[in-house]
Amino acid sequence: MKVLVIGGAGYIGSHAVRELVKEGNDVVVLDALYTGHRKAVDPKAKFYQGDIEDTFLVSKILRDEKIDAVMHFAAYSLVPESVKKPLKYYDNNVAGMISLLKAMNDAGTKYLVFSSSAATYGIPKKLPITEDTPLNPINPYGETKMMMEKIMAWADKADGIKYTALRYFNVAGASSDGTIGEDHAPETHLIPNILKSAISGDGKFTIFGDDYNTKDGTNVRDYVQVEDLIDAHILALKHMMKINKSDVFNLGTAHGYSNLEILESAKKVTGINIPYTMGPRRGGDPDSLVADSTKARTILGWKPKHENVDDVIATAWKWHKSHPKGYEDK
Amino acid sequence: MKVLVIGGAGYIGSHAVRELVKEGNDVVVLDALYTGHRKAVDPKAKFYQGDIEDTFLVSKILRDEKIDAVMHFAAYSLVPESVKKPLKYYDNNVAGMISLLKAMNDAGTKYLVFSSSAATYGIPKKLPITEDTPLNPINPYGETKMMMEKIMAWADKADGIKYTALRYFNVAGASSDGTIGEDHAPETHLIPNILKSAISGDGKFTIFGDDYNTKDGTNVRDYVQVEDLIDAHILALKHMMKINKSDVFNLGTAHGYSNLEILESAKKVTGINIPYTMGPRRGGDPDSLVADSTKARTILGWKPKHENVDDVIATAWKWHKSHPKGYEDK
Repeated sequence: MKVLVIGGAGYIGSHAVRELVKEGNDVVVLDALYTGHRKAVDPKAKFYQGDIEDTFLVSKILRDEKIDAVMHFAAYSLVPESVKKPLKYYDNNVAGMISLLKAMNDAGTKYLVFSSSAATYGIPKKLPITEDTPLNPINPYGETKMMMEKIMAWADKADGIKYTALRYFNVAGASSDGTIGEDHAPETHLIPNILKSAISGDGKFTIFGDDYNTKDGTNVRDYVQVEDLIDAHILALKHMMKINKSDVFNLGTAHGYSNLEILESAKKVTGINIPYTMGPRRGGDPDSLVADSTKARTILGWKPKHENVDDVIATAWKWHKSHPKGYEDK
Repeated sequence: MKVLVIGGAGYIGSHAVRELVKEGNDVVVLDALYTGHRKAVDPKAKFYQGDIEDTFLVSKILRDEKIDAVMHFAAYSLVPESVKKPLKYYDNNVAGMISLLKAMNDAGTKYLVFSSSAATYGIPKKLPITEDTPLNPINPYGETKMMMEKIMAWADKADGIKYTALRYFNVAGASSDGTIGEDHAPETHLIPNILKSAISGDGKFTIFGDDYNTKDGTNVRDYVQVEDLIDAHILALKHMMKINKSDVFNLGTAHGYSNLEILESAKKVTGINIPYTMGPRRGGDPDSLVADSTKARTILGWKPKHENVDDVIATAWKWHKSHPKGYEDK
């Protein structure tokens, strides 16, 4: 199978490229390298530098490379930035999706696996969150993902483009061999920030709020290991191509950990005592987000290998310890 | 005041241009002329041919012309086409709005009056429809308008762009002097189709369904005369610039007429016996759509001059009778 991975130089995309290559697929990567890392791309994949909004380029790649399916990891994903610069998000994410679908129509490419987000649910009324929970995003980031899903649904009906929307919970960890992992600037994710603070010993790690309605007052999240997440993508792609139908799946382990529990786990995994500051709420963080992942487990046969968060953090630690400055390419 | 009217060569946009010129404003028009008519543009307005998605061009016009406010009439608006070609709609309407807002940010233009639609409400549970009715569009056209409203709301919060979203019910009629009016290809609106059939005598006028839950089984709609509609735009723009706040208003008369009542009114106004065929439902038409327009009447002081649909049709008839082939420019 020949797969185009858009955003294949990013954190999650680069893990997808590796896994697809490992499974013997032909892989082509398109990445603008705004935030991605050229070094993160598996050398067995063919690389194009370019923007998802370049409809002509995307269409040309789809045709020239005879692509069977697309995986799209090229959306911006920082919630606070999306509140400050919403048009940047609507442009890259929503207009980017419109451009991609136009290119796919133009080239006759029929299958798309798409990174959606638990942010589409907003503040859920019930936990764990099933896929039929009403979508009610509370920030532009979540809204772009919801809009992208809706646009795909109409493109399916009118143009027969089949898609799988995978609603990620908190993606974490790195490749098991520690060679590729998370390197964002700025880093806003919990686990890398804890581990970077463990390495630097700067004592600057901050938790944002301990007055949430959770077991210990800190936010509870569902951490899914990045290689497990990619397993689900490949299962989803195969399933979709077999039954030729669009669908939506939550990707989370269904286990909720509080920020303080994550910190404890990181201390255990690293053997380092990591101090922290308790800061105020930063706004826009729901108390708890935990997936009901029954649908992915039963329909796709997905079985995450890292059900315990210690195992997730162990993979992240392997990466950060061996790459304290990330890819060092920026 | 200097106003940029995007889509100023279209049916509604051309009436806005005329009215703004009449009131002594400086008017600049941008229109791609995909569906608009160069002849419909008041000669006192400065004309640019170009696409709303050309961010650079729009930004340059906003700067060079020192524009104070924008009126945006450049969205595609045919419901059945939007179901068949959703990406065309998401592209022009949603990506077009993102591009416009980026250009406005770039040029520092702060005010936008925007044509939204009753199609954002979908099938309302209660009539008449107030502005706080939940948005639940049932076709891509309505969804693009809802998305455009949401994107503007975040651009207001982040970038201080103030907007007025005017949710149109069924716009109809023509300028009182009969010199500009409706000329779409294809024509999908009820009143022009009745009147064109009256002129041609082709007997081809069709009503789509008489089994709706309404007084006579045919769809009930709220017809707002195009010059009255434009009055509301100008009132809304002045109000917004005075209080520097975004808002949303329904624009309809609050009177509901069935398709058969419209036909009877057209017979009366034209003095012609217009035969019709009763066809099946075409899908996606809510039983009744009637505006509660209290908000526009009280806050904006809007008072439509054509409250009776006979008066609306009389203005349309003046245009169609004197321009049986429309602008004859295509």
